[in-house]
Amino acid sequence: MKIVRSIAELKRDHSVSLGFVPTMGAFHEGHLSLMRVAKSHHDVAAVSLFVNPTQFGQGEDFERYPRNLDRDAEMAESAGVDILFAPDVSQMYPRKTTEIQVSGVTERWEGGHRPGHFTGVATVVAKLFNIVQPTAAYFGQKDLQQCLVIQRMVADLNLPVELKFEETVRESDGLAMSSRNVYLSDSNRAIAPNLYQELKNIRDGVLVKSASVDSLLSSAINRLNAVGFTVDYLELVDLDTMAPIRDLEQDAAIIVAARLGSTRLIDNLRILLNSL
Amino acid sequence: MKIVRSIAELKRDHSVSLGFVPTMGAFHEGHLSLMRVAKSHHDVAAVSLFVNPTQFGQGEDFERYPRNLDRDAEMAESAGVDILFAPDVSQMYPRKTTEIQVSGVTERWEGGHRPGHFTGVATVVAKLFNIVQPTAAYFGQKDLQQCLVIQRMVADLNLPVELKFEETVRESDGLAMSSRNVYLSDSNRAIAPNLYQELKNIRDGVLVKSASVDSLLSSAINRLNAVGFTVDYLELVDLDTMAPIRDLEQDAAIIVAARLGSTRLIDNLRILLNSL
Repeated sequence: MKIVRSIAELKRDHSVSLGFVPTMGAFHEGHLSLMRVAKSHHDVAAVSLFVNPTQFGQGEDFERYPRNLDRDAEMAESAGVDILFAPDVSQMYPRKTTEIQVSGVTERWEGGHRPGHFTGVATVVAKLFNIVQPTAAYFGQKDLQQCLVIQRMVADLNLPVELKFEETVRESDGLAMSSRNVYLSDSNRAIAPNLYQELKNIRDGVLVKSASVDSLLSSAINRLNAVGFTVDYLELVDLDTMAPIRDLEQDAAIIVAARLGSTRLIDNLRILLNSL
Repeated sequence: MKIVRSIAELKRDHSVSLGFVPTMGAFHEGHLSLMRVAKSHHDVAAVSLFVNPTQFGQGEDFERYPRNLDRDAEMAESAGVDILFAPDVSQMYPRKTTEIQVSGVTERWEGGHRPGHFTGVATVVAKLFNIVQPTAAYFGQKDLQQCLVIQRMVADLNLPVELKFEETVRESDGLAMSSRNVYLSDSNRAIAPNLYQELKNIRDGVLVKSASVDSLLSSAINRLNAVGFTVDYLELVDLDTMAPIRDLEQDAAIIVAARLGSTRLIDNLRILLNSL
């Protein structure tokens, strides 16, 4: 595996197919799974490792975000990655004078709670796509709204890349894998799986119509608050627009963001009509 | 020459070098000159013809902008163009949910007089680059600030394209060629060359220091107003930042925008220190 630190070192050979996994490092099985899929479908698998400052807001965890290049490089190598692109901030942002703003799908949920977050995400992902010029790029569905924002940007700007959104990888107790799980205290780690459990409770309730959607959501919020979460949002939304819905007439998702101590967790569970 | 109306029809063969000239049509010798240069330097010359609605403001000339695909196609063919990409608005904007905003160099002059103009330009140029995937793209220096905005965007977003800015092509009396010159009445067409004449007067005055820059600029504005122009701006600016300057210590440009009747003309004259 080649570790590349500068943009100039990356030279795209268009005669080979390249699968790309953009990451912020602190790899877990979710990342590794994306890398293996990318490698299995392409001649070359490339991974970027860049903790992007522009997608963190004031008071968020940019400074303490876990960083360990040596450990990550070993893990990427073991997953079959050919190129690990790990630029520093001055490589990526000699200036910050151009921003990509996606409207609509960015406005609620993570966009509402983290102003500027999706502008930072859209801009850095477009930069990485232009630098790496992948055939296809792989993202995890845990960041569902991020997937939709990137899908919208790629379509709107005609970016020549195929997008692949892969299933969330979970711990055995259901907790969605996340680089931020290492922040959890032991007691909060024991509570954390309740988040996914409540998503499944709501899905089951919506499918059998055991109660109104409003009532299913508010009961789940009450139970999460009771065990120690502070819920930022918990909603049933249209899978394309992320607008709240109350009847299951299209593909949907239950989305949640909640804080446990100083750690903010997000998760989601999709409900696809054609798989019911 | 192949005329392509849909994005899906364009397939990029990365084994050939492609020179690209983005245009709004209504071709004149300035466009043809860019096309010939593109053809001479690349295996394939591609031209886009798209009157981009998002770069026109309220009350501007989007509706009356000259359109004649048959005439333009003949002229492009005669200049050696291989591919003429002429999409309609619904091809380019099935939605308008993503915008590229360049700060700094966009804020003054055309950006100040035409709010939103450069966001429209940056977004459509990035879309066209992503669709056509050129090796190099060619622009005329008559739209000097546009050149700088595109240069900034390409650098900031790491777009994989080489930029080439070519000298303004002029009529024999000095008037910069522009698709909008056809709007001029006969009497205004006779007055129009004064614009370039005043740019040269100022340059000569700045170089020999015949008067202060302020005084050279205001005298020229007075003379232009006296013959019938309404001057939007006339300034000596730094060639990189477009900030006004009063001493010639770096590469500079004299830039002007002025209205004659209902026609708005822009022009500029660069002063390059290493060619003095």
